[in-house]
Amino acid sequence: MKVYLDCLPCMLRQVLEASRMSTDNEKLQSDIMDAAISVLNQYRSFSNSPEIGRDMHRIVKEITGVIDPYSYVKQRDIKTALSLYSKMKQIVAKKQNRLYWALKAAAVGNVLDSAINLGCGIEKNIEMEVEKPFAVCDIERLESQLETAKRILVIGDNSGETVFDCLLLEQLSNFDLTYAVRSAPIINDATEEEAKASGIDGYARIISTGCDVPGVLLNECSQTFLDIFYGADIVICKGQGNYETLLECNRDIYFLLKAKCPVLSGLLGVSLNEYVFKYNVCKCQ
Amino acid sequence: MKVYLDCLPCMLRQVLEASRMSTDNEKLQSDIMDAAISVLNQYRSFSNSPEIGRDMHRIVKEITGVIDPYSYVKQRDIKTALSLYSKMKQIVAKKQNRLYWALKAAAVGNVLDSAINLGCGIEKNIEMEVEKPFAVCDIERLESQLETAKRILVIGDNSGETVFDCLLLEQLSNFDLTYAVRSAPIINDATEEEAKASGIDGYARIISTGCDVPGVLLNECSQTFLDIFYGADIVICKGQGNYETLLECNRDIYFLLKAKCPVLSGLLGVSLNEYVFKYNVCKCQ
Repeated sequence: MKVYLDCLPCMLRQVLEASRMSTDNEKLQSDIMDAAISVLNQYRSFSNSPEIGRDMHRIVKEITGVIDPYSYVKQRDIKTALSLYSKMKQIVAKKQNRLYWALKAAAVGNVLDSAINLGCGIEKNIEMEVEKPFAVCDIERLESQLETAKRILVIGDNSGETVFDCLLLEQLSNFDLTYAVRSAPIINDATEEEAKASGIDGYARIISTGCDVPGVLLNECSQTFLDIFYGADIVICKGQGNYETLLECNRDIYFLLKAKCPVLSGLLGVSLNEYVFKYNVCKCQ
Repeated sequence: MKVYLDCLPCMLRQVLEASRMSTDNEKLQSDIMDAAISVLNQYRSFSNSPEIGRDMHRIVKEITGVIDPYSYVKQRDIKTALSLYSKMKQIVAKKQNRLYWALKAAAVGNVLDSAINLGCGIEKNIEMEVEKPFAVCDIERLESQLETAKRILVIGDNSGETVFDCLLLEQLSNFDLTYAVRSAPIINDATEEEAKASGIDGYARIISTGCDVPGVLLNECSQTFLDIFYGADIVICKGQGNYETLLECNRDIYFLLKAKCPVLSGLLGVSLNEYVFKYNVCKCQ
């Protein structure tokens, strides 16, 4: 997916936010902005926004020496999600089509996105969010594929969201499950550490993609990940960054997300803040 | 007032918006963004954000040839404000302290700010907005100064807001009134054309500041404006751009605005979206 112009101011806003979470030193904050603007100046040389995001967040790490600026946010969001887990589990358990509601729970978890907004207050309106219907829902295709599938790969996104992903993994417990995470801290995305802290290892094998953008660049991923990615019968990708980087990849994929910005909602043909579970057929087949 | 880092992504977002209002040509839109990022790269050489804003909006005009990208927005907002004028006038007329409510009406008009958000839907909740109290209100100082004042200067801000400013000017009709506007189109700020279309000329002498930033840079203003500015017994400045550029000027000023961004609300010591009528004493006296 190309770089959209809307992403440029959004990423600049985000890097300022990250700089302030990493240091109170205003000189360092403005040095970060200088370097971030220099990256923006080169935006045409990037193939997608998550790649720009990585370079911009690298600046924060290099200038402040803080390896994981979102560490506190990640821990806070996992704690919040864990405190809501029982309620979400009960909601799913009461429903007739548990797979549908587990997908919805996992999609609602995608609200916990520090790239878009810090402190989203999910605990206040989680039940209302869960009840919102999917604007696109290809669950029938998934149910059909599950009849013959063996290996399923879920590609995670934000920390905290990972907790709700357990509800989806639980519904898929009869399958060989792998859960992929970023190779290193980037924004509030889950790495192996956050996936474990969320309990993912109770349901699936956790692996790193080998890539540290807030998404998945296949040409940077490890061979181990690629073998699982291409060998899986079903791949479910969470969130916008994964959508942006895997939309044009060479295999079929399910995207599960909340459309949280005008660019993504426009591409998906849904309204802002709508939920999507979309089967994307590889264009190169 | 210095340039705040928060203003950089906000201005980049704004220039993209202006580029889309001026042209559907995506090549031109990205050329504008390239040039805008180059201006951001030089942000340390500017003394305040409205100056950067002018340079960025100049790019839109130069690249697209559209002299007034917000022309439609300005006309629409004036039309909306005119349709609400009678209701606002009645609200003010029913109140005991009409000066207070006229100030409030003029402050509510400041919602019509395209630098912050297009299409704010003011008509839906205008009565609720008017009833919100000022977080800072130096009306007693104003009432005291009005006892001896003769000449009053009001410095306008957004188009549409100008219509509600008439309610304030009406309460001050016993004084020698001047209403100052931008010298040329910049964002949705009022020039002489919009002030007249709003009916300001029925209440006050309209003059241009001689300056075309979305604010007032005294070193760029005409001598005619400066004579009125320094000769006035009372100066009332509307909106954030005027606040940013006149906060450290060499005379006392009243600022009348809604604090619509975190930088301004922080500087004013109020919460986001609160209303302010603040007497600012010149620091150099």
